[in-house]
Amino acid sequence: MTDTSKVNSDQTKASVGQKMWGGRFSAEPGELMQAINVSIDFDCKLAAQDIAGSKAHSNMLAAQRIITSDDRDAIHKGLTEIEAEINDGTFPWSRELEDIHLNIEARLRDKIGDAAGRLHTGRSRNDQVATDFRLWVRDALDNFDAQIDTLQRALLSQAAGNTDTIMPGFTHLQNAQPVTFGHHMLAYLEMFARDRSRLADCRARMNESPLGAAALAGTPYPINRDMTAEALGFDRPMANSLDAVSARDFAMEALSAATICATHLSRLSEEIVIWTSAQFGFITLTDAFTTGSSIMPQKRNPDAAELIRAKVGRIMGAMTTLTIVMKGLPLAYSKDMQEDKEPVFDAFEALSLGLAAMAGMVSDMHPNKDRLAEAAGAAYSTATDLADWLVRSLNMPFRDAHHVTGTIVALAEQKAKTLDALTLSEMQSVEPRITDDVYSVLSPLASASSRVSYGGTAPSEVEKQVTRWQEILA
Amino acid sequence: MTDTSKVNSDQTKASVGQKMWGGRFSAEPGELMQAINVSIDFDCKLAAQDIAGSKAHSNMLAAQRIITSDDRDAIHKGLTEIEAEINDGTFPWSRELEDIHLNIEARLRDKIGDAAGRLHTGRSRNDQVATDFRLWVRDALDNFDAQIDTLQRALLSQAAGNTDTIMPGFTHLQNAQPVTFGHHMLAYLEMFARDRSRLADCRARMNESPLGAAALAGTPYPINRDMTAEALGFDRPMANSLDAVSARDFAMEALSAATICATHLSRLSEEIVIWTSAQFGFITLTDAFTTGSSIMPQKRNPDAAELIRAKVGRIMGAMTTLTIVMKGLPLAYSKDMQEDKEPVFDAFEALSLGLAAMAGMVSDMHPNKDRLAEAAGAAYSTATDLADWLVRSLNMPFRDAHHVTGTIVALAEQKAKTLDALTLSEMQSVEPRITDDVYSVLSPLASASSRVSYGGTAPSEVEKQVTRWQEILA
Amino acid sequence: MTDTSKVNSDQTKASVGQKMWGGRFSAEPGELMQAINVSIDFDCKLAAQDIAGSKAHSNMLAAQRIITSDDRDAIHKGLTEIEAEINDGTFPWSRELEDIHLNIEARLRDKIGDAAGRLHTGRSRNDQVATDFRLWVRDALDNFDAQIDTLQRALLSQAAGNTDTIMPGFTHLQNAQPVTFGHHMLAYLEMFARDRSRLADCRARMNESPLGAAALAGTPYPINRDMTAEALGFDRPMANSLDAVSARDFAMEALSAATICATHLSRLSEEIVIWTSAQFGFITLTDAFTTGSSIMPQKRNPDAAELIRAKVGRIMGAMTTLTIVMKGLPLAYSKDMQEDKEPVFDAFEALSLGLAAMAGMVSDMHPNKDRLAEAAGAAYSTATDLADWLVRSLNMPFRDAHHVTGTIVALAEQKAKTLDALTLSEMQSVEPRITDDVYSVLSPLASASSRVSYGGTAPSEVEKQVTRWQEILA
Amino acid sequence: MTDTSKVNSDQTKASVGQKMWGGRFSAEPGELMQAINVSIDFDCKLAAQDIAGSKAHSNMLAAQRIITSDDRDAIHKGLTEIEAEINDGTFPWSRELEDIHLNIEARLRDKIGDAAGRLHTGRSRNDQVATDFRLWVRDALDNFDAQIDTLQRALLSQAAGNTDTIMPGFTHLQNAQPVTFGHHMLAYLEMFARDRSRLADCRARMNESPLGAAALAGTPYPINRDMTAEALGFDRPMANSLDAVSARDFAMEALSAATICATHLSRLSEEIVIWTSAQFGFITLTDAFTTGSSIMPQKRNPDAAELIRAKVGRIMGAMTTLTIVMKGLPLAYSKDMQEDKEPVFDAFEALSLGLAAMAGMVSDMHPNKDRLAEAAGAAYSTATDLADWLVRSLNMPFRDAHHVTGTIVALAEQKAKTLDALTLSEMQSVEPRITDDVYSVLSPLASASSRVSYGGTAPSEVEKQVTRWQEILA
Repeated sequence: MTDTSKVNSDQTKASVGQKMWGGRFSAEPGELMQAINVSIDFDCKLAAQDIAGSKAHSNMLAAQRIITSDDRDAIHKGLTEIEAEINDGTFPWSRELEDIHLNIEARLRDKIGDAAGRLHTGRSRNDQVATDFRLWVRDALDNFDAQIDTLQRALLSQAAGNTDTIMPGFTHLQNAQPVTFGHHMLAYLEMFARDRSRLADCRARMNESPLGAAALAGTPYPINRDMTAEALGFDRPMANSLDAVSARDFAMEALSAATICATHLSRLSEEIVIWTSAQFGFITLTDAFTTGSSIMPQKRNPDAAELIRAKVGRIMGAMTTLTIVMKGLPLAYSKDMQEDKEPVFDAFEALSLGLAAMAGMVSDMHPNKDRLAEAAGAAYSTATDLADWLVRSLNMPFRDAHHVTGTIVALAEQKAKTLDALTLSEMQSVEPRITDDVYSVLSPLASASSRVSYGGTAPSEVEKQVTRWQEILA
Repeated sequence: MTDTSKVNSDQTKASVGQKMWGGRFSAEPGELMQAINVSIDFDCKLAAQDIAGSKAHSNMLAAQRIITSDDRDAIHKGLTEIEAEINDGTFPWSRELEDIHLNIEARLRDKIGDAAGRLHTGRSRNDQVATDFRLWVRDALDNFDAQIDTLQRALLSQAAGNTDTIMPGFTHLQNAQPVTFGHHMLAYLEMFARDRSRLADCRARMNESPLGAAALAGTPYPINRDMTAEALGFDRPMANSLDAVSARDFAMEALSAATICATHLSRLSEEIVIWTSAQFGFITLTDAFTTGSSIMPQKRNPDAAELIRAKVGRIMGAMTTLTIVMKGLPLAYSKDMQEDKEPVFDAFEALSLGLAAMAGMVSDMHPNKDRLAEAAGAAYSTATDLADWLVRSLNMPFRDAHHVTGTIVALAEQKAKTLDALTLSEMQSVEPRITDDVYSVLSPLASASSRVSYGGTAPSEVEKQVTRWQEILA
Repeated sequence: MTDTSKVNSDQTKASVGQKMWGGRFSAEPGELMQAINVSIDFDCKLAAQDIAGSKAHSNMLAAQRIITSDDRDAIHKGLTEIEAEINDGTFPWSRELEDIHLNIEARLRDKIGDAAGRLHTGRSRNDQVATDFRLWVRDALDNFDAQIDTLQRALLSQAAGNTDTIMPGFTHLQNAQPVTFGHHMLAYLEMFARDRSRLADCRARMNESPLGAAALAGTPYPINRDMTAEALGFDRPMANSLDAVSARDFAMEALSAATICATHLSRLSEEIVIWTSAQFGFITLTDAFTTGSSIMPQKRNPDAAELIRAKVGRIMGAMTTLTIVMKGLPLAYSKDMQEDKEPVFDAFEALSLGLAAMAGMVSDMHPNKDRLAEAAGAAYSTATDLADWLVRSLNMPFRDAHHVTGTIVALAEQKAKTLDALTLSEMQSVEPRITDDVYSVLSPLASASSRVSYGGTAPSEVEKQVTRWQEILA
Repeated sequence: MTDTSKVNSDQTKASVGQKMWGGRFSAEPGELMQAINVSIDFDCKLAAQDIAGSKAHSNMLAAQRIITSDDRDAIHKGLTEIEAEINDGTFPWSRELEDIHLNIEARLRDKIGDAAGRLHTGRSRNDQVATDFRLWVRDALDNFDAQIDTLQRALLSQAAGNTDTIMPGFTHLQNAQPVTFGHHMLAYLEMFARDRSRLADCRARMNESPLGAAALAGTPYPINRDMTAEALGFDRPMANSLDAVSARDFAMEALSAATICATHLSRLSEEIVIWTSAQFGFITLTDAFTTGSSIMPQKRNPDAAELIRAKVGRIMGAMTTLTIVMKGLPLAYSKDMQEDKEPVFDAFEALSLGLAAMAGMVSDMHPNKDRLAEAAGAAYSTATDLADWLVRSLNMPFRDAHHVTGTIVALAEQKAKTLDALTLSEMQSVEPRITDDVYSVLSPLASASSRVSYGGTAPSEVEKQVTRWQEILA
C-alpha cells in the first residue's frame, strides 16, 4: 500500500489553525463550513484506491457500452497521469475541492475534458468512498498479516532457542511454578495466531464490493457489478445498495481485531518493561530499542516497549470513536460517516508501528539465563511438585500432602535453603517415607520437565510445539 | 442455557451495602477483602458449566486410571445432586467460599468426602474458570445465532410483504431517491447476517479447551486433554498452557461482535423512533412495544426502540471495561481477570434483550403506505431520474442535463406541483426534446422500478433478494 | 494561542509511511525506533509554550544567580529568534532531534553556544514537557471559554427573539406539551453554561506549575519555583515533584469536560438534523451551513450538524485513549505518557470546530413559526392541560379528570378537530360542568402560557430567563 | 446512604432469565416489553431518595394550599410506613409496577387512598426521577469525600513515618534518582486531593433541584420550587424545565471524576503489585489484603491490589456507556435515559470498594527499608548528583561534567563498587580537582537530602509537606 504524499497545504492549515485558536469563533460561516467539512487533509490517503476504483468502473462502463472506449482510454490515461503526479508530489491539491474524489475528478477534467464527467455515470460519491475505504482497509489487513507473520517468526526463534531455559512462571506477579522461556514465547505466538485469524476473518467478510450501489438505491444504467467487483479483487458485489453505502461494520470489526491484537502487544510490553528492570533483570535489550543516558552508560530505558504498551490506548480510542459515530445513524449515508476514516488511519498506523517495533524488540531480546534460573528456584516454587510427589508416590491424601509440604517449606525457610538443597534426612525428619526419588521433582528444571501434559511447559512438549509452529510458518 | 438461581444472599449484600456507604471505610480489613474478593454473586451463573467440566474431567481421570471408577461415580452422583439443588434453589450458597468452584467443591466434599478432593487432580481453578467461562460464552453465542435468525425472519417477512411499497430513501435525513420499504428491511437483514457470521467466526475460534493447563504450566499427571475437550464439545485442547489460563481475547472478540450488532440495532431503533413520530408517521406500532397515556389515547411512545437504541452503550461499555482490565497484564493469571465476567454477563443479557425485543417490534411494525408514498414523492425526489433520463435518452452531457433539471425543478416549485404532475408542454418549455417517455421515470414508483442494477431498489430486484433470503433461511 | 507551523517533513513522513506499509517489518531497528519514538511531528505544537517556559526559567536562574545575566540575555535573544523562525516557517526542524525540546535546545546552541546548555540547569525534559503541556491545555481552555460565550450569545439571541414562538415539546420524539422555541434554546444555554463552569474548574485545578520538579525528585540548585510559576501565570508551584512529572489527570479532566460539552453539541445537532428534515420542517438553515445539489436546488443537507454530532465520537475516543494509556503506570515518568498529547490536540481541535460551527449554525437558524405552531397543536398536545383544568376548576379527582379527558380526546379524534376547535357544547356533552374558561388552556399558546412555575415554558418565564442571561453575558 | 433491600423477585428473574436464553425469542411481546422496560430491579436503590422527594413535595403543596394539610399528613404517614417496610424487607415489590415511583405510589394508594394521587400534582415521573438520581449521586459523592479522606490519612501516616526512608525513584521502571518513601506516598496524597476537589466541584455544580419541572414544561400549579429545593438540600431550583428533565451531565461528570480517581488507584495498585514481587520485595502486606497457599506459606498474592487496579475498567466502561446513551438524544425525556442508572450504581460501588480496600492496604503496607535502601544505591543512581556537583563545585561546563561522570561510573562498574564506595583517589584519577565534599552527594541519602527545592524529595522538604498535610487534614 502506498501512503500517498500528504496534501501540500500546511500553510492553509496553519492559517486555519490560527483562526481556530485565535479567532475561529469570529470566522466567517464559509470558512467555518470549509474547516469542518473538508476531508482532503486525510482522505488523500485513499488516492491509490480511488484511482483503482475509477479505472475498474470505467472499464466496466465501456464493456457495457455505457461510455465509449475512447472515453475509457482517455480516463485511464488521465488517471495514470494523476497517480504519477500524486506520487511525485506535484498534484495540485485543493481544499476548495473538499475531498479526494472531487480533487481527482477536477484534475481529470482539466486533463481530458467532458469525458471526466462520464466517469461518474452509474456511481456516486457514496459508493465510491465506501469502495475506496474498503480497499484501503483490506490492504492494511494484508499488511498486518505479513507483519504478524514476522513477529511470530521472531517469537518462534526465541522459543526454539530457549526450549529448556528455565524461568519463574508467575501468577499475580508472584513466583508460581517454573516454566521455560520458550514456553512463554509460544504463549504469545498462540495469541498472535488468533489475532491473525481474526484479521483474516474480517478480511474475508468485508471483501464485497459496494461499487454500483450509487447514491443509495442502485442505478438504472445497465452496469455490471460483478465485473467491477472482480477487477478490484472483491469476492462479489454487496447484495443491497442501501447497506452498501451505509455499512461501516467492516471498519469497526477491523478496529476491534486491532484492539485485541494491541492488548496482546501491551501484555508482552509490560513484561518486557518489568523484565528489564534492575530488580528483575530477566532480559537485556540492546541500544536499538532502548534509550540511554550520557552519564549513566549502563542505563537502558525500555522506551519502545512503553510506547507499544500505550498504543492499545489509541487503537481502542479509535474503536470507541467509530462506535459512537455510528450509533443511531439512520440509513443511508449521513455526513457523520466522514468521521470514519481518521480513527482507522491513526489506529492502523499505531498497530503497524507496534507490530514492527515488537518484532524487532523480540529479536533483540537476550534472556539472562542465570538470572532466570536463580529466580525460578526462589520462593520454594517447586512446593506444589513436592506435594504432587507425595500424593503420587506415597499415595498420600491431598490434605495430608499439603500439610507435610508446608512443614518442609517452613523447615527450608528456617534453614535458608531452597527445597532441593534440603538433605534427604532433613525431609525424612518431617515424613520418613520420602525417598531419593523426590529430588526428581524438586529442582526447577525437574519441575518443569515433569509437566508433560499436552501444551505443558516441559522442554519435550515445548520442542513439539516449536516443531509444529516451524511447520506452520514454513 | 440455564440462568441458575441467584445466590441467596440479599441480606448479606444489603448489610455489606450499608457498610459500603454508611461506613465501609471503617470496615475491618477482613470484611473489605471479602467484599472486593468474592465473586460468587456473579460467577454462580457458571454453575452448569462448572459441573459439566467437572464431570468431563473426572471421567477422564478415571479413564486414565488417575482416580478410581468408584471415585468417579461418587463425584458424578454428588455433582448431579448439586445441580438439582441449584436448580431447586436449595443449594447452600456461601460467600465465605468465595467463588463457584469452591462452593461446589465444598458441597461435594459434604456429600462424598475425600473423593471430592481427588476431583481436583491435574487441574486448578485457573484452567477451571477459563473452561467454565468459555463454555458459557459459547452457549451465549449459540443463543445469539438463534435470536438473530428470528430477527432476520421478521425482517424478511416485512420485506416480502413490501417489495413494492415506495418510501423516501434518505441521505442526511433528507429525501434523496425513492426506495422500497422491502429494500430498506433487507439492508438490515444483510447487516444482521454479517453479525451472525461474525459471531460464528468468534465461536469457531474460541472453541478450544483450556482444561488441563492446570495452574499455568500443565501437569505431571498423565491426563488426556483430547478426551475432556471432546466431551465438552471443544474442537481441540489449547496448545499452550500459559496461554490457556491467560487468554481472554475470546471474550473481547465476543463483546466486539456484540457491540457491532448493537450498533445495527441502534440504527434501526433510531429509524423506528423517527418513523413513529407524528411528523414522519411512516410506521405504526401496536401497544405491545409502545407505552401510552391514559388521557392521550392516540399516544404511543416507542419505549422499546429507545431502550434498544441505548443498549449499544452498555455493550460497548463492557468492551471498554474488558480492554482496560486486560491492558498490560503480565502472564499468566492475575486477579484482575476476575473482572472479566460481569461485563460479559451484563452486555450479553442486554444484547439478548435487544435482539428479542427488536424481532418482536419488527414483526409488530405496520408501514403506513399512503404516508410513505406521499413522502416519497415530495421534495422532487426524482430529479436525478430526470437528469439521468436526459443523459440517456437525449444523450445530453451531464452538466447540461443538470442545468435543465434544475430549471424544471424550479418551474415545478413555482407551480407547486410534483415533477410527475408537470405537463409535457411545461417540460418542453424548458427542453423541447423531452418526450412522453420521461414519465416512465418521474413518479417515485417509476424511479424506484428503474433501479434494476444488482442490489438496487427496483421491486424486481428486491423480489430476487427476498427469494434468495427465503432460500438461505429456509 | 498560535498553532505553530507544522514540521516541514512531509517527505520524510511519506518515506516513513511507505516503509510502514510497504516494508516496515523489514525496516532496520534504528528506523523503527525512530518511527515509534519521535514526537516532533506533533509536539511541535508546544513551541510557543516551550519558549515561554524557557524564558521564565532562565530569568529565574539569573535572578537566583545560578546563571549569569549575560547568559540569560543570550538565551532570551536566541529564543526570540527561534520563535520568529518558527512563525516564519524557516525553523530547521529535525526528526533526528526527536522532540520539541531538543529541537529548540539544539537550535539555541547553534545560535548562542554553551549558554544554551546552562538553560537546562535545575530542570529536565520531564518537568519541561509537563509545563509546556499544561500551558497549552490552559490556553485551549481559555479559548473554549470564549467560544462557548459566543455560542451562548447565539442561543440567547434566538431565545430573545422567540420567547413566545410556540412549538411542540417532545418526549420520546412524540408531541408531549407545547413549549416555546425560546425556552428550548435556553435549555441549551444552561447546558453550555455548566460546560463553561466545568472547564473553568478544570482550569483552576490544573493551574499549578510543575517547573522545577526536574527529572522527578527536585533539584539541589537554589531555584525559585514561585517565581517561574508566577511568570507563567500559574497560581503556585506543584507541591510534590514526583506528582508534578507523573500527573496527567489535568488532561483527562479537560477531555472529560470536552466530552460532556460535545454530548450537548450532539444533542442539539440531532435536533437540527431532525428539524431540517422535510417531514419536520421546523427550521431552515441557509447555504452557509448546508450543502446542496446542482439539480435539486431546494435541497439543503445539514452537513455541519451531522459533522458536529459525530465529533463527540473522537473526543470521547481521546478520553478513552488517555485513560488506557495512564492505567496502571507506575511513578514517575514512563514513556507511555508521550501518547498523551495527540489525543488531546485532536479532541480539542474537534471541539473547537464544533463549537464554532454550532455558534454559526444557531445564528443561521430560522424557525418556521407557522410549521412549529401547527405541529404544537397536533396530537391533542393540550390534553394534560384539559385534565389539569378539570382538577383545578371543577375539583374533580385525578382519575375522573383523566377519564373525562380521554373521552373528549376521542370525541375530537372522531370529529377530526383539535381540542380547542371543539365547541363548548361538544365538551359539555361529555362533562356538563365545563365552562368557557376551559379555552384559556386548550390552545398551544394558552397551554404554554399557563406554565408559569419557575423555569417553566410560559413566555413570561422565558422572558425573565432571557433577561437574567442578558445580564450574565453582558 | 442506605442501600435499600433488593427487589424480592429472584424467582421472577430466574424465569425471565430462562426465557431469555432458552426461548426469549419466542416469548410473548408482553413479556418482552416488560423484560426490557422494567427498571425496578435497579431503581429500587432510589427508594430513600424518592420518599424524601415526595415528602418535600407534599410539604410544599400543602404550604402553597394546593393540597390540604390533612392530605399532606396522610401522605407523610404513608411514606414513613413504606420506608419502614422497605428497610424491613417487607415491602411488596412488583415488577408489574415497573419502577420505584409507581411501586411506592401504588403502595401509598393502598394505604391512604385518593390522597396518594394528589401527591403527584405539579410533578411528573420525569422530574421525579431526575431529582431522585441527583440526590443519590450527591450522597455518593459525599461518601467518596469521606473515603478519600480516610485514604489520604493512611497515605499521610505512611509518609510521616518514612520521611527519610530512601528508595529508588523510577523513570521507565528503571532506577533514576533516590527518593524517599514518604515523598512517594505524598505524590499520591496530592493526586487524591485533586480527586477530592474534582468531586467537590461536581457536587457543587449538580446541586440544583429539577423538582417542579414536571413532565418537561413546568406546571400551571402555583408551586414553590425554592421551598422543595431547600428542603432537599439543593442550592437552588434549576432554571429551565426542559434542561431539568433532560440533563445527565451531572452523572457523566461524576463518572469522569470517578474514572480519574480510579486511574490513580490503578497506578498505586500497579506499584504495590510490582513492589510485592519477590524480585522487588520493596514492601510487605499482611494476610489481610493478600491470599496465600496452603503449601507455600510464604506466598502472598496481592489480590486486593490487582482487583483495585482492574476497577478503572468498569468505571471507565460506565462513562463510555453513559456517553453513548446520551449521544444525540433530542430533548426532552427519552426512554434511553433509563439506562443512566445502572452504570453509575455499578461504577460507584466499584470505586467505593476500591477506595476502601486501598485505604486498608496502604495502612497495611510495611516498607522493607533495607531492601529499599539497597535498591536505591544500585545502578549508580547518584551519577546525576556527581555531575551536578562537578558543575556547581568545580564550575565545570555541563558537557565536561557529563563526560567525567561517565568515566567515573565506568570505573565503578569495572571495580564492582557503588559510586560512594569509590575512594577519593580513585575519583581523582579521573578528575584531580574532586574533593572530599563530593561524598556529600554520592550516597542515596545524601543525594535525596540535597534536593531541597520546593516539593523536592529531601527529607526536610518531605517533612514540611507532611506538616502541611497534617494541618489540612486535621
